[in-house]
Amino acid sequence: MKSKAVFYHAGCPVCLDTEQQIATAIDRNRYDVEIVHLGEAKGRVAEAERAGVKSVPALVLGGTPLHLNFGAPLSALK
Amino acid sequence: MKSKAVFYHAGCPVCLDTEQQIATAIDRNRYDVEIVHLGEAKGRVAEAERAGVKSVPALVLGGTPLHLNFGAPLSALK
Repeated sequence: MKSKAVFYHAGCPVCLDTEQQIATAIDRNRYDVEIVHLGEAKGRVAEAERAGVKSVPALVLGGTPLHLNFGAPLSALK
Repeated sequence: MKSKAVFYHAGCPVCLDTEQQIATAIDRNRYDVEIVHLGEAKGRVAEAERAGVKSVPALVLGGTPLHLNFGAPLSALK
């Protein structure tokens, strides 16, 4: 069964470069990847926060956050 | 043909947790993953620096650095 991976970003240049890297590197046979733009989906900022996301871009893998590079703090998106 | 991915770390708790996440998430059909402990392989700090690594843990994918979480600055390993 596939695990869920959620990539949270905010449309920043760092976010988009990182998304490209992740999109090609992650094992799609093991993970279903959802991309969430928190600037456009403000309602999901709280969900990201609950998962432990402190900044974007970040990838939540099976519930555990992995912060990738640094674009913006989550607090800037509220 | 597989691309090369190098995961640089320094043995810190953040590094080891991140290594676990990456080890399961990365597509092994597309990437050959090498794990480098910079505390034990000081000679490779310069190589990481040339690839653009600023802190560990970091993953260099096809020559481009991806900083993952934050364990220690590269400068602390010299």
